[in-house]
Amino acid sequence: MIKTVCLDRQSQVFKDDCVAADISELRELESNVIWADVSDPTSRDFEALAEEFGFHHLSIEDCQNEHQRPKVEEYAGYYFIVLYETELADAGDRLELRELNIFLGKNYLVTVHSRPIRAIETAKRLWHEWTDRSDLGSGLVAYLLIDAIVDDYLPLLDVLSDHMDDLEDSIFGEWRSGVIEDIFMVKKKLLYLRRAVTPLRDVFNTLLRREQPIFPRDTHLYFQDVYDHLIRVADTIDTLRDMLSSTMDAYLSVSGNRMNKIMKRLTSISTILMSVTLIAGIYGMNFVFMPELRWRYGYVGALASMVAVGAALYVFLKKVDWL
Amino acid sequence: MIKTVCLDRQSQVFKDDCVAADISELRELESNVIWADVSDPTSRDFEALAEEFGFHHLSIEDCQNEHQRPKVEEYAGYYFIVLYETELADAGDRLELRELNIFLGKNYLVTVHSRPIRAIETAKRLWHEWTDRSDLGSGLVAYLLIDAIVDDYLPLLDVLSDHMDDLEDSIFGEWRSGVIEDIFMVKKKLLYLRRAVTPLRDVFNTLLRREQPIFPRDTHLYFQDVYDHLIRVADTIDTLRDMLSSTMDAYLSVSGNRMNKIMKRLTSISTILMSVTLIAGIYGMNFVFMPELRWRYGYVGALASMVAVGAALYVFLKKVDWL
Amino acid sequence: MIKTVCLDRQSQVFKDDCVAADISELRELESNVIWADVSDPTSRDFEALAEEFGFHHLSIEDCQNEHQRPKVEEYAGYYFIVLYETELADAGDRLELRELNIFLGKNYLVTVHSRPIRAIETAKRLWHEWTDRSDLGSGLVAYLLIDAIVDDYLPLLDVLSDHMDDLEDSIFGEWRSGVIEDIFMVKKKLLYLRRAVTPLRDVFNTLLRREQPIFPRDTHLYFQDVYDHLIRVADTIDTLRDMLSSTMDAYLSVSGNRMNKIMKRLTSISTILMSVTLIAGIYGMNFVFMPELRWRYGYVGALASMVAVGAALYVFLKKVDWL
Amino acid sequence: MIKTVCLDRQSQVFKDDCVAADISELRELESNVIWADVSDPTSRDFEALAEEFGFHHLSIEDCQNEHQRPKVEEYAGYYFIVLYETELADAGDRLELRELNIFLGKNYLVTVHSRPIRAIETAKRLWHEWTDRSDLGSGLVAYLLIDAIVDDYLPLLDVLSDHMDDLEDSIFGEWRSGVIEDIFMVKKKLLYLRRAVTPLRDVFNTLLRREQPIFPRDTHLYFQDVYDHLIRVADTIDTLRDMLSSTMDAYLSVSGNRMNKIMKRLTSISTILMSVTLIAGIYGMNFVFMPELRWRYGYVGALASMVAVGAALYVFLKKVDWL
Amino acid sequence: MIKTVCLDRQSQVFKDDCVAADISELRELESNVIWADVSDPTSRDFEALAEEFGFHHLSIEDCQNEHQRPKVEEYAGYYFIVLYETELADAGDRLELRELNIFLGKNYLVTVHSRPIRAIETAKRLWHEWTDRSDLGSGLVAYLLIDAIVDDYLPLLDVLSDHMDDLEDSIFGEWRSGVIEDIFMVKKKLLYLRRAVTPLRDVFNTLLRREQPIFPRDTHLYFQDVYDHLIRVADTIDTLRDMLSSTMDAYLSVSGNRMNKIMKRLTSISTILMSVTLIAGIYGMNFVFMPELRWRYGYVGALASMVAVGAALYVFLKKVDWL
Repeated sequence: MIKTVCLDRQSQVFKDDCVAADISELRELESNVIWADVSDPTSRDFEALAEEFGFHHLSIEDCQNEHQRPKVEEYAGYYFIVLYETELADAGDRLELRELNIFLGKNYLVTVHSRPIRAIETAKRLWHEWTDRSDLGSGLVAYLLIDAIVDDYLPLLDVLSDHMDDLEDSIFGEWRSGVIEDIFMVKKKLLYLRRAVTPLRDVFNTLLRREQPIFPRDTHLYFQDVYDHLIRVADTIDTLRDMLSSTMDAYLSVSGNRMNKIMKRLTSISTILMSVTLIAGIYGMNFVFMPELRWRYGYVGALASMVAVGAALYVFLKKVDWL
Repeated sequence: MIKTVCLDRQSQVFKDDCVAADISELRELESNVIWADVSDPTSRDFEALAEEFGFHHLSIEDCQNEHQRPKVEEYAGYYFIVLYETELADAGDRLELRELNIFLGKNYLVTVHSRPIRAIETAKRLWHEWTDRSDLGSGLVAYLLIDAIVDDYLPLLDVLSDHMDDLEDSIFGEWRSGVIEDIFMVKKKLLYLRRAVTPLRDVFNTLLRREQPIFPRDTHLYFQDVYDHLIRVADTIDTLRDMLSSTMDAYLSVSGNRMNKIMKRLTSISTILMSVTLIAGIYGMNFVFMPELRWRYGYVGALASMVAVGAALYVFLKKVDWL
Repeated sequence: MIKTVCLDRQSQVFKDDCVAADISELRELESNVIWADVSDPTSRDFEALAEEFGFHHLSIEDCQNEHQRPKVEEYAGYYFIVLYETELADAGDRLELRELNIFLGKNYLVTVHSRPIRAIETAKRLWHEWTDRSDLGSGLVAYLLIDAIVDDYLPLLDVLSDHMDDLEDSIFGEWRSGVIEDIFMVKKKLLYLRRAVTPLRDVFNTLLRREQPIFPRDTHLYFQDVYDHLIRVADTIDTLRDMLSSTMDAYLSVSGNRMNKIMKRLTSISTILMSVTLIAGIYGMNFVFMPELRWRYGYVGALASMVAVGAALYVFLKKVDWL
Repeated sequence: MIKTVCLDRQSQVFKDDCVAADISELRELESNVIWADVSDPTSRDFEALAEEFGFHHLSIEDCQNEHQRPKVEEYAGYYFIVLYETELADAGDRLELRELNIFLGKNYLVTVHSRPIRAIETAKRLWHEWTDRSDLGSGLVAYLLIDAIVDDYLPLLDVLSDHMDDLEDSIFGEWRSGVIEDIFMVKKKLLYLRRAVTPLRDVFNTLLRREQPIFPRDTHLYFQDVYDHLIRVADTIDTLRDMLSSTMDAYLSVSGNRMNKIMKRLTSISTILMSVTLIAGIYGMNFVFMPELRWRYGYVGALASMVAVGAALYVFLKKVDWL
Repeated sequence: MIKTVCLDRQSQVFKDDCVAADISELRELESNVIWADVSDPTSRDFEALAEEFGFHHLSIEDCQNEHQRPKVEEYAGYYFIVLYETELADAGDRLELRELNIFLGKNYLVTVHSRPIRAIETAKRLWHEWTDRSDLGSGLVAYLLIDAIVDDYLPLLDVLSDHMDDLEDSIFGEWRSGVIEDIFMVKKKLLYLRRAVTPLRDVFNTLLRREQPIFPRDTHLYFQDVYDHLIRVADTIDTLRDMLSSTMDAYLSVSGNRMNKIMKRLTSISTILMSVTLIAGIYGMNFVFMPELRWRYGYVGALASMVAVGAALYVFLKKVDWL
């Protein structure tokens, strides 16, 4: 379904469920920017877009095939942008990536997505607040949209960062199982997030270093701002990855130490038990001439020596820190 | 054997088992593109190619020696391209790489391969469907061919990715042996796949950044599309490699934990058994004056104390999580 | 609160708690540099700054949102700089990062921070001492300020380096627990420090390589000096990180060796005890015809053979270095 | 000893044991290329070369000091090239590197080496076969020589690759000791080989990207070919290194698993033995009132219960896969 | 103390303990190069240098603060170079770095150092031998000095390399303790050495790629030579680091294997002892009806069966390679 909005200085004309003719009509109106938002696109919608805006069939195809990588491609007269809105779904267990395709022309913006994108609402709201800068045209709308998406990455990273602090606490503090699986899951989320961010960062970098910028210098400041946020997100991801691998190392080391301490203790206890058992074994021998066996306090003495040997060994092993 | 096809706008002239003269004849016909497909090339075929198209002997030699690395080389008047079609053979156990050499000139395309290449059929089929863009000439044919090959990498990566999900499940879920070998095999496949993809990506990057493009700007959009797919494949390979090394780490860690838990338990059980045996040992001593031995319920008491000690130790060790 | 200082050659005019009008008034005075220092900025302060200096709303927003990454951005007529003063807080346990935002124009400098920044006092003091170079204007003030911050990184790295030497001593010398946690904490501090330093280094690099420098050539020498210190700090951080991971490896290895030695010893001792116990077990058998049992010195002989077997095993295990 | 060859189109003039005058004489003859091959050079030889060709004393010094790194340096009027011929010596145990220094001028080639270089014979032989391209002059001779050396790297890598396949088989298949040492040795060889290849590759890259090529465009195609082989060799080395580190990981993991399995089994067996021993211990107690002791089939029953307990434990431990 | 030398073609005028006036005087003499060598500089010396040569106060400050990173900075009319002479001190246990600051102008050279630098003597000696190239002026002196320092890195690397061969021998051959500490120490030395070399290499690279070289083309050849040595040193350091980490891996693996073998053996021996003890335990039971106990050769038979069981287990465990 195509919803079109005329983002004018004074008024905004909305039109739901458009066909190519509707868009043409709106474009003829005197207005700054046309924003056509296509949700759950059908092949009829794509035909309408290709017809009205003259999009290259390669960009239309990329739009139709989901799971593109984030990118900004330049076609004759417009940019084709793919990026991902992210959200933690299933109580933080899964990282949901929702693809958003943007066709960005001089005075229009076409957004195509098969799942609802929150950033679209945010961008629409901010457009109302920023009307004093509406002369920046479609570039500014694109900025608001992309910035809303990129800004969503940061709280998500905060959630992951908090999760990692918990993991760290459970390594150096109160021990619990399942830490490896948790580390692995965070790692996986960071990996997917990085895939959504770094290609975008690289492409923005290229865009901003162009000799002849397509958008006016002032719009570039806004794109620079998005780029800056992307770098910050990418840096944070890298830092978290570094931290995570340190956490993994620390986990392995602490876990190994704990295990070793236990084995050391158990083996030490075995040694004590074997020593004491040896004494019992000695007095279990059947020699005819064993004077101790006939002593009045032989038994008590044997028990006492067992306790003495056990205690001495215990103290010794404690002292050399083997127990 | 050389099969030649005239890829005309209207008609297609096929000719099997050509010699140099046949190709000359076809090239004299007014047509867009000549596509000479050489399978199982003989030295006579190579001579025919060199004679008719004037290929440099270095490119002919590269063609004759298998196991070149993927590359795009520029010679006077034509590009020489080497790339690999991949397929999982032997029920997914082996990664088969089939070399394809392409000589790409302004109005001709020569493909040389010693094993059948599926992408050639795909490209031929698509050519029929894309006749409205046939004015793009040999560049478009090359695009269709290379794109068909590159697009085959992605389902293959999906297979490997699914395999990795299985491995992950068998690490954190139901344990099974042979995981390391599986991880190693996937790693090896990714390594070979990367070798087939990354040089190609780098070369396409160089090609697309040329000051004076050889093919018209519009064809470049198509090559940009291939390049984009190559980046995506390379990115996915890198992500899978990252994931695989995390999986390996997780495997080692989980496997170590499992092992440690077992050893801890076995050693704990030994400790319990030794404690109980000690009691038996004590009452096995042969002291004359051991009052318990003469008690009516001495034996039962001893057994009871054994059970009590064993149970107490069991409860204790369970509590400190050593058992 | 905005404090403004006129950094004149002869005199310095101070004014606390300024509004936009106050700054305007000061700027009309004939002076080299105006330095407006804004601590604990309120939205009224930001409005005053935007009004008086005409700062772009994006830079004002970056100023308002804490936790930007260190950066240098160029706006029309001024640079916007974000950097971090660092200090070890909580007796060295925590790395405190205090954000400082600088607006650097041709003849003014605005510093914005929500927490007190020591470097500001240092820079003010040095300005008095460097009056002979005051013709370098706001660039020199910026240099003094940034240099004071960057120079503070080095003693901090020295503290971390000393800590690492201690860790190393405790690995190869006197053993103590908690080493992993310490290594982990140092690693974390280095990670945060690197995040505060490397983006700044990269940006300075770009600034210094500009074709048309904004500040005069002589000021550039000072920025080059800051850049040089930043490289040195970044290099030192990388070296410390390298060293730290070697230390971690060494710790794991030494710790593993120590553990193995203990287990080897305990198991060896068990083996000795079992051998001796076996002898006791043999003479505990109840065969009717066991001549030794009746011998006069059987018991003493058995004890002697136990000692002999134990000693022989001890010597042997010592010799093959298992004990 | 200096051997000089005039590589003419028609004839080849050989001259052994030349002095400077001999070379001058030969150079006056009308010929394409002079190739002076200096084996086991004496200081007299170096003087002759410096005198006749006017080589810079720095390049002469590099020639005299062995163990330079592979490089291509440009001097006034000639290139100075250092590269290494490699061979597996001592039945594959050692990687022998033989240094070859080349002075490459417009119409001459001087090769200096202290050990025999096989590639020189290959290049001479190929020159005869390639006489139709002899107009390419000294550049072609250099190509033939360098290509012969670079092509020798590939079979060597095949040998190492086969060795690695063997290692892999011995890890996942039939176990054998000494695998680590073998992995280490292969790693070392790859490291040395990489040192011989990568600097050369980088330098060729720089050479080929020069704005004003020294050799004619057609010769460049040949150097491009060498560069291509160098990349392939370097890529293969990197792939093998990657594979080797995977092999090492797999070895450690498989080896750890094998060890753990053995320890698990041994400890399980101990547990069974201890349980059975406990029963024996119980009936070894000396209580007066132990009814079983007097039973007719007490002994057999005890033995039976021992077998039963042992068997039950065996079955249980087998089932939980601890044995 | 400032020692000044006039490095003339014919004569050399020495002057010890100079003040600014002395240097001025010497500079007025007609000579090629003035070399002022300042050892243990006092603030008076720095004032004299600043006065006479007009050095920028930033370079003077860098000179006064020790522990700069190696660098080459360009100031108006002169280069300021910092580099480190290295030596193994304390019988190879410590890597000593001695800082040398060089001010290099068109016709003068000022060296500042607080500890004696061997390379200064070497450079002076070589200057006498190279008088035929003295027209290269201060650039050549700088070359001789820097080259002397850089050439000292290589024998040091040879010492480290030999040490690593020893470590390798002690890993795969005769075992000894302390290997980890040795590996760690070599790693640390390599790390410090790399810090002294790589920044210098990068700076020389930048210097040599300048569009307008400051020194004549012929001097550049010498700097190229130094750069070449720096690359070689840096490459060797990287190779040694690679090798060292392989050595560490090999150590850990071999050490783990040795340990495992011992534990396997000790546990196997325990198992044998327990089996034999079980037999003793069985015949230690007090059943009234145990026919064996009354047999004439029961005791001998029991001992024989113990030996038999022990021997059988020994043979079996040897065969499955657990012992």
